[in-house]
Amino acid sequence: MLSIPISQQMAIGIDIGGTNTVFGIVDHRGEINYRGAITTNKHEKIEDYIEELYQAILPSLNQFGSDKLVRGIGIGAPNGNYYSGEIEYAPNLRWPGKIPLVKLIQERFNLPSALTNDANAAAVGEMTYGAAKGMKDFIMITLGTGVGSGIVVNGEMVYGHDGFAGELGHTIIIPGGRKHWSTGFEGSLEAYASATGVRLTAIELLEKDKNKPSLLRHYDLDEIDSRLVYDCAIQGDEIAIETYRFTGDVLGKALANFVMFSSPEAIILFGGLCNAGNFIFQPAKRSMEANLLPIYRNKVQIMPSELKESDAAVLGASALVWELK
Amino acid sequence: MLSIPISQQMAIGIDIGGTNTVFGIVDHRGEINYRGAITTNKHEKIEDYIEELYQAILPSLNQFGSDKLVRGIGIGAPNGNYYSGEIEYAPNLRWPGKIPLVKLIQERFNLPSALTNDANAAAVGEMTYGAAKGMKDFIMITLGTGVGSGIVVNGEMVYGHDGFAGELGHTIIIPGGRKHWSTGFEGSLEAYASATGVRLTAIELLEKDKNKPSLLRHYDLDEIDSRLVYDCAIQGDEIAIETYRFTGDVLGKALANFVMFSSPEAIILFGGLCNAGNFIFQPAKRSMEANLLPIYRNKVQIMPSELKESDAAVLGASALVWELK
Repeated sequence: MLSIPISQQMAIGIDIGGTNTVFGIVDHRGEINYRGAITTNKHEKIEDYIEELYQAILPSLNQFGSDKLVRGIGIGAPNGNYYSGEIEYAPNLRWPGKIPLVKLIQERFNLPSALTNDANAAAVGEMTYGAAKGMKDFIMITLGTGVGSGIVVNGEMVYGHDGFAGELGHTIIIPGGRKHWSTGFEGSLEAYASATGVRLTAIELLEKDKNKPSLLRHYDLDEIDSRLVYDCAIQGDEIAIETYRFTGDVLGKALANFVMFSSPEAIILFGGLCNAGNFIFQPAKRSMEANLLPIYRNKVQIMPSELKESDAAVLGASALVWELK
Repeated sequence: MLSIPISQQMAIGIDIGGTNTVFGIVDHRGEINYRGAITTNKHEKIEDYIEELYQAILPSLNQFGSDKLVRGIGIGAPNGNYYSGEIEYAPNLRWPGKIPLVKLIQERFNLPSALTNDANAAAVGEMTYGAAKGMKDFIMITLGTGVGSGIVVNGEMVYGHDGFAGELGHTIIIPGGRKHWSTGFEGSLEAYASATGVRLTAIELLEKDKNKPSLLRHYDLDEIDSRLVYDCAIQGDEIAIETYRFTGDVLGKALANFVMFSSPEAIILFGGLCNAGNFIFQPAKRSMEANLLPIYRNKVQIMPSELKESDAAVLGASALVWELK
């Protein structure tokens, strides 16, 4: 293996989502040479799912000559545990309990494999190919349907003693605050800084000041989502702008706490909410700085991910391969 | 150096406090062979302070024969920066600005040296000689006059990109809560879970329910401190017990957030407030568990330090030496 230069080596990245499993063959610079997808929850037996995945990836493997080396497989999956190689009780997958995914994949593909959750994979991807290249200390926050996170300290992913570190979306930022629809926690970051959180904030603001005009009032409450709020914000709608300002403010408070934990060089934001750009970045930055001790101020960059959103999951998963020992 | 077995090697530990500088010569198991102290702020020039320190330590060095090796010097100091080797703007030391302490110490002693802040030193000490021996992921919280912290991830201290990681006492737990007497922050952990915090909570509770009898009412407000509150708590005083229950509750909320960051095996508590034992440990544990995602529950130990309080600072400082590369 060592005789083949890194430029000729490839990594398979597999991202297992609740609906689709997407994969790609990626070189060391983050170019995706081959892409594909299968449906995740078609098969009752996990072995049948793995077999379909194998058959889908095989043609792309056969295209490489002996001058190339496929070095391994990286997998991002909900509740993926890096240490055990198992998916543990993922609520949106049909296979119950603990799934020994790395074991099954290694047996079928005969390639070294590694697994982690989606947000950790995103952080490894950012460190390998993206905005965090060369950084030894940074935090990645994914602001999508939920809020995920991946933390890098001393150049290494923080997995914790059990593989579950980095659930920053569930840290409590406003005790007694908004109740989370799924965990039941009151005031967790995810209750505010997720797509659902933005939607709920917009609805609260519309109801709080019923006489204030807003473009959002032209829509049914069901139609209000983070994208629509953004569309209204760029048209200057005050309630829409205030929605993102409030979201950024809560996010910034959370970021300040995170900075005082690991003092990262940068915080990299990823996911749908980042499309709101400075509507969320500016208040987040302002609120973070206001809540930091002076020794941390004006040191930590808040920056958007440099990975294309559609590729990031596969890239992140593939990046695990280069870390394989 | 490598020819002398570790059992014959010694480390100098120096703890620089606002009033006294204490030091000790420590073996690899944490036995202190020699102790001493000088006054910290006697000399206007830092060089004179270092010279006095050198002259104070020299006799103990001379007692060792050539079969022993003094491997280096570890220093714990307020605002000590591991990376730069400087004490940066320490409010309670008389030397202004940045003090290049490691450089000065190395020049005078001709021994490799390392510096960090007191709380980080405590964590390294606990990992080397105490309750965290063999642990790769833990968090040390010092509950004293202030609240300090040292974080270990993957078996390494978390210093962050600039050396200032781990100021968990200043994370905001109750936004808009009690104003911190020094930082001005509202609702930081230190405003509650420090000796001053306990004192303020007791006074608040006494004033809130003026008709409730309490042993604490036999004292002037000036006399109320965390020790007195403990003394009253063991006598069954309700307000005193409630003071520690509330303190533990806030601490537990903070600990839950920290656990969801780095998923440590244990949280080790150190410092004066730990003397309150289960008056603070039990509510802290209960509140931590209640604020954790299910995947973290009943996994994280909260345990007291195993280092004697009077030795811990010197032991922690000396432990830095064994980590020297």
